[in-house]
Amino acid sequence: MQKTFTIKTLGQCGFDNPRKHGAISDEYIPVYVSEEFMKACGNASENDAATLYFQEAGPREKIFFEPEKTKVAIVTCGGLCPGLNDVIRSIVMELWHGYGVRDIIGIPYGLEGFIPKKYGHKLIELTPDVVSTIYMLGGTILGSSRGAQNFDEIADFLNEKGINLLFVLGGDGTMKAAKAISTAVKEHGLTLSVIGIPKTIDNDINFVEQSFGFATAVDEATKAIAAAHTEAVGMNNGIGIVKLMGRESGFIAAHAAVSLSLVNFVLIPEVRFALHGEGGLLPALEERLAKRHHAVIVVAEGAGQYLMQETGQKDSSGNIILQDIGGYLQKEIKAYFREKDFPVVIKYIDPSYMVRAVPANAHDRVYCGFLGRLAVDAGMSGKTEMVVSKLMGRFVHLPFELVTKQRRKLDIASHYWHSVLAATGQGHLKGML
Amino acid sequence: MQKTFTIKTLGQCGFDNPRKHGAISDEYIPVYVSEEFMKACGNASENDAATLYFQEAGPREKIFFEPEKTKVAIVTCGGLCPGLNDVIRSIVMELWHGYGVRDIIGIPYGLEGFIPKKYGHKLIELTPDVVSTIYMLGGTILGSSRGAQNFDEIADFLNEKGINLLFVLGGDGTMKAAKAISTAVKEHGLTLSVIGIPKTIDNDINFVEQSFGFATAVDEATKAIAAAHTEAVGMNNGIGIVKLMGRESGFIAAHAAVSLSLVNFVLIPEVRFALHGEGGLLPALEERLAKRHHAVIVVAEGAGQYLMQETGQKDSSGNIILQDIGGYLQKEIKAYFREKDFPVVIKYIDPSYMVRAVPANAHDRVYCGFLGRLAVDAGMSGKTEMVVSKLMGRFVHLPFELVTKQRRKLDIASHYWHSVLAATGQGHLKGML
Amino acid sequence: MQKTFTIKTLGQCGFDNPRKHGAISDEYIPVYVSEEFMKACGNASENDAATLYFQEAGPREKIFFEPEKTKVAIVTCGGLCPGLNDVIRSIVMELWHGYGVRDIIGIPYGLEGFIPKKYGHKLIELTPDVVSTIYMLGGTILGSSRGAQNFDEIADFLNEKGINLLFVLGGDGTMKAAKAISTAVKEHGLTLSVIGIPKTIDNDINFVEQSFGFATAVDEATKAIAAAHTEAVGMNNGIGIVKLMGRESGFIAAHAAVSLSLVNFVLIPEVRFALHGEGGLLPALEERLAKRHHAVIVVAEGAGQYLMQETGQKDSSGNIILQDIGGYLQKEIKAYFREKDFPVVIKYIDPSYMVRAVPANAHDRVYCGFLGRLAVDAGMSGKTEMVVSKLMGRFVHLPFELVTKQRRKLDIASHYWHSVLAATGQGHLKGML
Amino acid sequence: MQKTFTIKTLGQCGFDNPRKHGAISDEYIPVYVSEEFMKACGNASENDAATLYFQEAGPREKIFFEPEKTKVAIVTCGGLCPGLNDVIRSIVMELWHGYGVRDIIGIPYGLEGFIPKKYGHKLIELTPDVVSTIYMLGGTILGSSRGAQNFDEIADFLNEKGINLLFVLGGDGTMKAAKAISTAVKEHGLTLSVIGIPKTIDNDINFVEQSFGFATAVDEATKAIAAAHTEAVGMNNGIGIVKLMGRESGFIAAHAAVSLSLVNFVLIPEVRFALHGEGGLLPALEERLAKRHHAVIVVAEGAGQYLMQETGQKDSSGNIILQDIGGYLQKEIKAYFREKDFPVVIKYIDPSYMVRAVPANAHDRVYCGFLGRLAVDAGMSGKTEMVVSKLMGRFVHLPFELVTKQRRKLDIASHYWHSVLAATGQGHLKGML
Repeated sequence: MQKTFTIKTLGQCGFDNPRKHGAISDEYIPVYVSEEFMKACGNASENDAATLYFQEAGPREKIFFEPEKTKVAIVTCGGLCPGLNDVIRSIVMELWHGYGVRDIIGIPYGLEGFIPKKYGHKLIELTPDVVSTIYMLGGTILGSSRGAQNFDEIADFLNEKGINLLFVLGGDGTMKAAKAISTAVKEHGLTLSVIGIPKTIDNDINFVEQSFGFATAVDEATKAIAAAHTEAVGMNNGIGIVKLMGRESGFIAAHAAVSLSLVNFVLIPEVRFALHGEGGLLPALEERLAKRHHAVIVVAEGAGQYLMQETGQKDSSGNIILQDIGGYLQKEIKAYFREKDFPVVIKYIDPSYMVRAVPANAHDRVYCGFLGRLAVDAGMSGKTEMVVSKLMGRFVHLPFELVTKQRRKLDIASHYWHSVLAATGQGHLKGML
Repeated sequence: MQKTFTIKTLGQCGFDNPRKHGAISDEYIPVYVSEEFMKACGNASENDAATLYFQEAGPREKIFFEPEKTKVAIVTCGGLCPGLNDVIRSIVMELWHGYGVRDIIGIPYGLEGFIPKKYGHKLIELTPDVVSTIYMLGGTILGSSRGAQNFDEIADFLNEKGINLLFVLGGDGTMKAAKAISTAVKEHGLTLSVIGIPKTIDNDINFVEQSFGFATAVDEATKAIAAAHTEAVGMNNGIGIVKLMGRESGFIAAHAAVSLSLVNFVLIPEVRFALHGEGGLLPALEERLAKRHHAVIVVAEGAGQYLMQETGQKDSSGNIILQDIGGYLQKEIKAYFREKDFPVVIKYIDPSYMVRAVPANAHDRVYCGFLGRLAVDAGMSGKTEMVVSKLMGRFVHLPFELVTKQRRKLDIASHYWHSVLAATGQGHLKGML
Repeated sequence: MQKTFTIKTLGQCGFDNPRKHGAISDEYIPVYVSEEFMKACGNASENDAATLYFQEAGPREKIFFEPEKTKVAIVTCGGLCPGLNDVIRSIVMELWHGYGVRDIIGIPYGLEGFIPKKYGHKLIELTPDVVSTIYMLGGTILGSSRGAQNFDEIADFLNEKGINLLFVLGGDGTMKAAKAISTAVKEHGLTLSVIGIPKTIDNDINFVEQSFGFATAVDEATKAIAAAHTEAVGMNNGIGIVKLMGRESGFIAAHAAVSLSLVNFVLIPEVRFALHGEGGLLPALEERLAKRHHAVIVVAEGAGQYLMQETGQKDSSGNIILQDIGGYLQKEIKAYFREKDFPVVIKYIDPSYMVRAVPANAHDRVYCGFLGRLAVDAGMSGKTEMVVSKLMGRFVHLPFELVTKQRRKLDIASHYWHSVLAATGQGHLKGML
Repeated sequence: MQKTFTIKTLGQCGFDNPRKHGAISDEYIPVYVSEEFMKACGNASENDAATLYFQEAGPREKIFFEPEKTKVAIVTCGGLCPGLNDVIRSIVMELWHGYGVRDIIGIPYGLEGFIPKKYGHKLIELTPDVVSTIYMLGGTILGSSRGAQNFDEIADFLNEKGINLLFVLGGDGTMKAAKAISTAVKEHGLTLSVIGIPKTIDNDINFVEQSFGFATAVDEATKAIAAAHTEAVGMNNGIGIVKLMGRESGFIAAHAAVSLSLVNFVLIPEVRFALHGEGGLLPALEERLAKRHHAVIVVAEGAGQYLMQETGQKDSSGNIILQDIGGYLQKEIKAYFREKDFPVVIKYIDPSYMVRAVPANAHDRVYCGFLGRLAVDAGMSGKTEMVVSKLMGRFVHLPFELVTKQRRKLDIASHYWHSVLAATGQGHLKGML
C-alpha cells in the first residue's frame, strides 16, 4: 500500500527564514511501516506493511509569518506528563532566539485559560528568562485542566488577542479540540496556525512511536517494580502488585516489566485474562509461589475491567472512570489463597502520580527539545492542523486526522509482546498468546 | 535526675581481642538528656532534663567468646526498612575479618526460621562473599515475618545448633521477643548473648534518637511530596495528599515536610485535629486555596484514626490494622468542596512500600556499618539483652528494658514541632499548638 | 540506490524452535536510509538516500543447533559501557529459558580469557542464578581487556572446549577480531556461529543508530554539565569546562549539550575550531562573559587534537593516546584572560569513568534485553559473522563487514547539528557551520 | 574541665517576638564533650573529656530589632557547598513569615558585593517568591568569591544601606572576616548583628560536628567510588583511584570509604604514609592485587603533599594550592608495577565539582532549614559575632572565636578511624595506627 499524508498550509511563504542553515523542502518522503505497526495504529484498510509518504519536519527557506509581528500562544491540556515544561521551553527559546518572535503568551490551566471572563485565570507572559530553568520542574508551569470549552468563545479570545500561532499540548481529545478551534477560528476569518504536540503518558497516540515522557515514566515505574520485588522476596510467599498507567494500552506496564526482569505476570488492557480455571492468573500464581515462594504482578490500570462491576461514571474529559483493578486483584488473591489455607503476604503499590509528575530524564529532554523546535519550524512556515512525530527514526509532519483516528494499542501478535511474555514466563496463561 | 543503666554480661572475659586497637573500657559515661527528649521517651518519673549514665559502645581489651569456637546467628523480623542488609553485612564482615569468627548462619523469614520443623525454611550460611554486595539491595536477604513463635521451641533450636551469639534486628515487639528468647535459653542452661539492633521505619524506638533507615525513608518520602506538589500546582485548586508511614509517631511526615518546604498541612498521630469548624482542616484548606489555588497535605498513616469507624482488626504482629486516613481525607475534602460548589482537583499519593523497600543512602550505610560493628563488639565481649544506640552524638549500650518501655513520640511542645508548624504555616489549626 | 546485505549461515536448520511463537522468516526487508544517515555512515559510493535490504531479527521456525547439545561462550572486550551486564543476562536467560541451552561459559577478561595457558584466568559458568541480579552492577561481570590475541590459539581453545556459539561484545576493533576468530575456526574445521553485539560508549559504530549504553551515558554526562553550570554561575565570570567521551565522534557531547540547555560551546572531533582570531573560541568566550558573566564549554576528548603537540603514543588496543584537550583549554583560557586583565574563574570537570561505569537506565535495559534475545535467535538459527542493530525503528541483522567499514561520525551538515548550534548559540564560531 | 562560652549581645530586647511559641531562655546548658572530640577540636589546654556550657539556640520571648524597621543582608563566600541555597531560603522565609521583616538584600559574589563602586555587582532583593524553589539548585543564587576586601569599605557600605543584621555564610576564613566586619562597623558607630553560618565541604570547622552539605557530599563521593570499583574489577589487576575533597581533614574520604565498603586504602591529610618499603602503600597494593586482582584507593586532596615538590603558590583566599596527589599516585603506581613487569590497569577519577555543586539531599535540607531559622532567631534577639552549631544532638550558639580557633581534624586515635581501617583492612600500613 502507498499513501501520502498532505499537510495544510495557510498560504504563500514570503519572508526569509532567520534559521536559514539546514533548511529543507516540503517534499514528501517515504516511510516504510511494518505490518506490526500498521496493525497497532490501524490506519489502513488492509493491515499490510506499507509505504507512507510524509512531509519531513524542519526549518524551511521561507516562512509565512513575519517574526516581529507574530503573536503566539501555548496551552497545555489534560493530565501531567514528564517533558511538558521542556516542550514549552523549547518552543519559547526557538521562537525567541531562532526566529526573533517577542510576543508569546502562556494560556493558564488548559482550555479554561482561553475564557478569562468565566474563569478569571491570568495570562502568563513567556520569555527566555521565565522558561530557562523550568526543565527542573515536573508538570507544566502553565497549569492544565480537563474537559472541553466552547470553541466559539475560544475563537473570540484568539481573535481579540490577535494570536497567529497556537501550540497545543495534549492527548488525542485535545488534538480533536485543536482541530475544532482551528475550524471555529476560520469561521471568524482569522489566519491562525494550530500546531499540536501530542502528549500521552500511555504512549497510545496513533502514529507516534514513542510519545515524550514515556522513557521517563518507564524509569519511574521500574522503581515501583523494584520495591514490589524487594517486598515480595522479603516475606515467605510474598506477592508484590504494581498498578501502572495504561487506560487502553499496556505500553508502560509491558516496557517496565521487560526493563526490570523481576516481573512474573504483566496484565494489560489489550489481553483478556481469566482469574480462575486452566490458564487463569490465580492457579498460575499458586504454581509460581509453590516453586519460587515469591511473585511480582504488574497490572495496567485499564486491564481486567470486565472482571469488575462497571459504574459507567465518567470524568470531566469524558473518560470512563476505571475500576481499581489493583485493589480488586489484591482482594481476589487474598480470598483464593485463604480458601486454600496457603498463607501469602500481599504488598500492593500504586505509584500513580509519582510516575508522571517527575521532571523528564535526559532522553526525553532531548526529544522534547526537538519536538518543540520542529513545531516552531512548522508553525512559522504556515503549516496548520498538524503535529510533529518521530516515525521510523525520522521527524515528520502528521495531519490531525491521522493522530486522532484511534488510540494506538500494543499488538499482541507482535515480536515485542512475545518478548515480554518470554521475559515474564507467563506464556501459558489463557489468552496471553 | 541522675541514673545509670547497667548492662548484663555473661561472665569474665578471658580471651584477647584481635580488634585490639582503640579498645575502650566498660566505664559508664554521662549523657545529658534534654527535657524535650525525656518527654518524648517518657522514661523518667519526672520529665526534667537529666544526666543518664550509659556504657560506651566499642571493642573491649578482652572478649568472652573464643572466636574460632563461636557460633553466631542473625535474624531479621517485622516490616522492611532501608539498611537491614547493611547491618547484616557489617555484622558478618566484623565477625569474620575483625574477630575471626567463621560460623555464621542467617535465620530465614524471621522467627519462623527458628522452627524448621514447622515451616521448613532452610538456614543460610553467611560469609563475606555472600554479603559483599547486598548493600545494593533493599529489604533483607534473610527474609522476614511478622508475629511471635514459641520461645521454648526457639530455645531448643538454639541449643541444638549450639549458637553462642544471636543478633536480632527488629522493632520493639521483636526486642521483647529477644528478651523472651534470652530468658527461655537461660532456662535451657545455654550461654547465649542476645544483642538487638532496633529497627523501625517510624523512628519511634525509645531512646534511639534516629533509627537506621530513617534518613533514607525521608529522602524517598520527599519524592512523593514533590510529585504531590507538582500535581497540585498543575491544576486550578489542586490538592495533593501524601500518606506516609507513622503508626503512632509522625517523625517521617514531619521531617519530610520540613525538608521539602512545599507542604501546607502535616497531620500526625500525636496531634488531634478536627475537620470542621473553627481551626478545622477543611476551612483552613479552603482559605489556603482561595489565596494560593493549590495545597499539599502530608498525613501520617496513624493520624486522625478517631475520625473514622474503628474495626478493631489486628495483623499477625498484633498491631491494630489502621483505617486509611488518606482515602478518608480525600472523600471528606471532596464532599466539603462539592457542597460549597468550589471546584477542586484532588490527587492522592500513597508511596507506601516505595519508601521503605529501597537500598539505604550513604548516611544510613555509614550508620548501619557502625551499628553492626559495635553490636559485634558488644556480643563478643559477653554483653547481652542490650542494643546499641547513638545518643547525643555517642554510641552507647542500652538495656532491652529501656528501648521497649514505650514508643517514642514527637514532642509537640518541642522547638522541633514548632519549626514544622512555622514551615507549613498551619499554626492556626485547632490543636496543633 | 538499492542494496541487499546478505547474512551468512552455517547450514540447514533442522530442529524445531522451542520459541515457536511469533517466529519470522529470513526475508530481507527494505529500510529507507536518509542522505544524512548515509553520509554519517559513509557506506555507499553515492551519498544519496537509499533503500537498503536487511534480514529482520527475531526467532525462526527452525533452528540449526540442537539446544541440549549446544555449547555457548560469551566474551566482553574493550572499555566499559553501561548495559554490558544486561546483554550478558539477556543472552543467558534466553538461551536457558527460551531455548533450553544449559552449557554456557563466560570468558574472563576479554580475549585474554581464551588463552588460559598464558593468562591463567578461570572460566565462569553462567546460569540464570549467576546473572539474575547483575543488572544492578555497572561494568561487566566477565571482566574485559584491551588488545588482540593470537587467533589460532583462540581457535584451538574453542575447538578444545567444543564451543558452537560465541557471543562477542565489543567495539569495531573487537568486531574485526570476531571476524578473524570465525575465519581461524573455519580453518580448524569447527562449526561455530559468531554473533557480535556492538558496544561503544562513543555511539560511533557504523549503521548502528544508537548503541546500547548511550542513553545512560548522556544521563550521566548531563550531571557533570549541571555541576559545571552551577560552578560557573557561582562566581563572577565563571567558566565551566566539561570533557566528555568521544574519540572521533561527538555524539555524547552534542546530545548531552542539547539535553541540558545550559551549554554555550560544544567542541567535537568532527569540527575544526580555532582558539584565536575572528570566529575563534576565545574571543567568542570573552563576548559571552561580557554579556552574561558565565559560560559552559563541553568538549569531546577527541576534539582539537591538532591544537596540541601529538606524541604518537598508542594504547594496547592500538588507539592513539589522546592529548588532554580539557586541560589544554583550561590553560589557554587562563592565559588569554590574564593577558587581558579580565579576571575569570575556571572550573574543569572530567567525569570520565563516572559516565561509563554506571548501571544502565531503564531505556538501555530494555534495549539490551532485545539485543541479547535477538542475538540468541540469530545464533541458534545458524547465522554467523553478524550483529543485531536497530535501524529506523526495526531490529535487523548486519554483516560484520558493514559495521566495521568505518566509524560513524556526526554529520555536521545535518539538521541535528544545526539544532545543537541553535541550542548553544555558537553558530558564529569559525568552522562550526 | 568546665567552661562557659558566652555570647555577645547588642543590648536589651524590647520587642515582643511574633514567633512566640516555644520560646526559650538565654540559659547556658551543659554539653558533655568526649576526649575524642576535644582532641579533634583542640580547644582545651588539656585533651580530656569536658563539660562545656553553651547557650541553646531558638527563639526568645523578646527581640532586639523591630521587624518592620529591620534591614537584613545575606552574603555567601568561598567555594560552593550543597545547602547554601537552602540556608538562604530558610533565612528569608523565617525573616519574612516568622518575624515580619520585609527588607532583605542579597550581597552578590561574596565580599566583592559590598563594594559596588569597585566591582559593579548589583544587589539582589530577596523575597519568598525569589527563594521559594531555589532548593532545587546547587550552588548559591547570590554568587560567591574568594579573598578578602577592605573592611572599612564594607563598613561604609553597611552604614550607608542601614543594615542591622548581616548573615555570613562561609568557611573559617570568612568567619574571621565576619568578625573583622563586626569590629569595623562598631568603629563606625553602627549597631549591627553579625551571625555566621559555617560552611565547609571538608567538614573541618572547629566545634561543628557535621557541617551542612557534608551528607550530600558523601552521597556524591560514593558514586565516584562505585565507578572506580566497577572499573577496577572490570580489568585484570585493575586499580581505581578516587581523589576527594579534604585539604587538611580527611572526613569525606573516610566517611565515603566506610559508607561504600569497596575501598581498600584511604589516604588522608592527618596520616603520613610512605609509598615504598615495609608498611608502604605500593607493596601493600601489590599484595592486595596478587590476592584479589583489583583494588580501590581513595585519597583526600590534601594527603601526601610532602611526597611531592611544593610550589608554595596560593589562591586568592590565601590557601596553598595543593599538588595533585591523585595524579602523582597514578604516576608512581604505574612506575612501580612497570618495573616489576606486573601489568596493571589504572583508572583515576577526580569527581571534583560534581561532589559539591549538587543540590542538597533531604537530610541536609532539613539541617539547613534549622540552621537558617535558628540564625534568624539569634540575630533578631540581638546576639552577634556567633554561629549556630549542632553539638551532641543540640543546637547551640558558638562565639566566632571558638569556630575560628583552628581547623577540626580527624582524630586518628579515635574509634571512628579504627573503624575505617577495619573496613578497608589497611591497618598494616605504616603510620596508619
